[in-house]
Amino acid sequence: MTARNPTACLLIIGNEVLSGRTQDANIRFIATKLSEIGMPLREVRVIPDMRDVIIDTVNEARAKFDHVFTTGGIGPTHDDITSECIAAAFEVPWEAHPVAWARMERAFRAGEFNPARQRMATMPRGAELIDNAISVAPGFTMGNVHVMAGVPRIMQSMMDTLLPRLPHGTPIASRAVHAFRLPEGLIADGLEAIQKRYQGLDLGSYPFYRPSGNGVTIVAKGPDAASAEAAIAEVTALILSLERSPIQGEPEAGTAAGN
Amino acid sequence: MTARNPTACLLIIGNEVLSGRTQDANIRFIATKLSEIGMPLREVRVIPDMRDVIIDTVNEARAKFDHVFTTGGIGPTHDDITSECIAAAFEVPWEAHPVAWARMERAFRAGEFNPARQRMATMPRGAELIDNAISVAPGFTMGNVHVMAGVPRIMQSMMDTLLPRLPHGTPIASRAVHAFRLPEGLIADGLEAIQKRYQGLDLGSYPFYRPSGNGVTIVAKGPDAASAEAAIAEVTALILSLERSPIQGEPEAGTAAGN
Repeated sequence: MTARNPTACLLIIGNEVLSGRTQDANIRFIATKLSEIGMPLREVRVIPDMRDVIIDTVNEARAKFDHVFTTGGIGPTHDDITSECIAAAFEVPWEAHPVAWARMERAFRAGEFNPARQRMATMPRGAELIDNAISVAPGFTMGNVHVMAGVPRIMQSMMDTLLPRLPHGTPIASRAVHAFRLPEGLIADGLEAIQKRYQGLDLGSYPFYRPSGNGVTIVAKGPDAASAEAAIAEVTALILSLERSPIQGEPEAGTAAGN
Repeated sequence: MTARNPTACLLIIGNEVLSGRTQDANIRFIATKLSEIGMPLREVRVIPDMRDVIIDTVNEARAKFDHVFTTGGIGPTHDDITSECIAAAFEVPWEAHPVAWARMERAFRAGEFNPARQRMATMPRGAELIDNAISVAPGFTMGNVHVMAGVPRIMQSMMDTLLPRLPHGTPIASRAVHAFRLPEGLIADGLEAIQKRYQGLDLGSYPFYRPSGNGVTIVAKGPDAASAEAAIAEVTALILSLERSPIQGEPEAGTAAGN
């Protein structure tokens, strides 16, 4: 991560993740997309549907990070309070958005664009819509805050809309090598020495415990792909010196929760 | 959630969730366990392996919440810096913990309890160990901060050790009803009226999109199981009045990421 890359913060708004009812399905998707455009995610916060908490957290995050992404709380029910809290955070009126209102009014039959649904067309003054391919109700951008739905497939479609509008930094290159039957405690000292020689990289060590066997994955991340490759080449030599077999890439790539 | 219940905050420390490399597998487990003992999780933060960020976040969280749980960053490698950051946050020395040290020294063969592994037996002065059934390296409690491993099965075993030591509040009762083909926008107004009559409850509305059909789940949570049941009975009547079929409980309970 270079110092010049824009930074991002994600706020997951809603009681359902905090209560354990829902398994989060949004962090990884957003983290991966932002990493691809060189806007590293520096913090995630999961916060409840509480007005003061949302307002304070949004204001803290938008001052501290270049871009803030929120998911959740923009539906039609009483616990969907994100939109009005964003207005309060920016100290602007929360009012009908003419484009969103007209579009939603058309989408529903007469009498079905009720007060609850009208709330989804009510936004902070100055909001720019974030359309999506799934639902007629849009998200919106206010300043550096991007307000999206919590439902994963709607959020994903909103991210597709949003990504071309965002500033892009230097993409973060990632290279990995793994080895079975290699405890972290054996490779740690050699790894630290390599990290010291590559100050522009993040060298991460991740043990895994899988049916196919236990071991460790070493990941080098940074804006310079060549130096990520060079560092992983040194780690590969280190693994050989410990009499293990280095394997390029991640074990069973795509498997969740293995770390 | 009653005002008297102790509150909790979870800090997930490590670059791997922020980069999108790893799907978080710890929030839901910890949230569920804490909910069961009546210590609602009020905030989760995912933060990087950066010394100043860890120290500041730990100090902010331990002042704001009754209990703070951390996962990640207590292994033997150079990116495992949680333990020394906790010592810095509490302004105490980071030193060999005699019990952990003796136990780990016994567990390794001569010469294999190397400096990297010795770091796992080095803790803030005054730390109380959190044992686990998987690994010889323990977590620890410092004040109101409980420091655990990031590997899910090790963390889960540490939670088993920890839970009996924690204060227990009033457990949060949860009741739910769902209906297919019921858009949130149709039930929102009636739901808000019910929420207003049950101030001690959190009434949450969660749309779902599943192969078996779309619909909405209404969940009532609070310390008083009888009033959660009464509220869900009213929601059930509301669903019937909208000519849908109420179904008790959650659809496909246990399915992740369906919301």
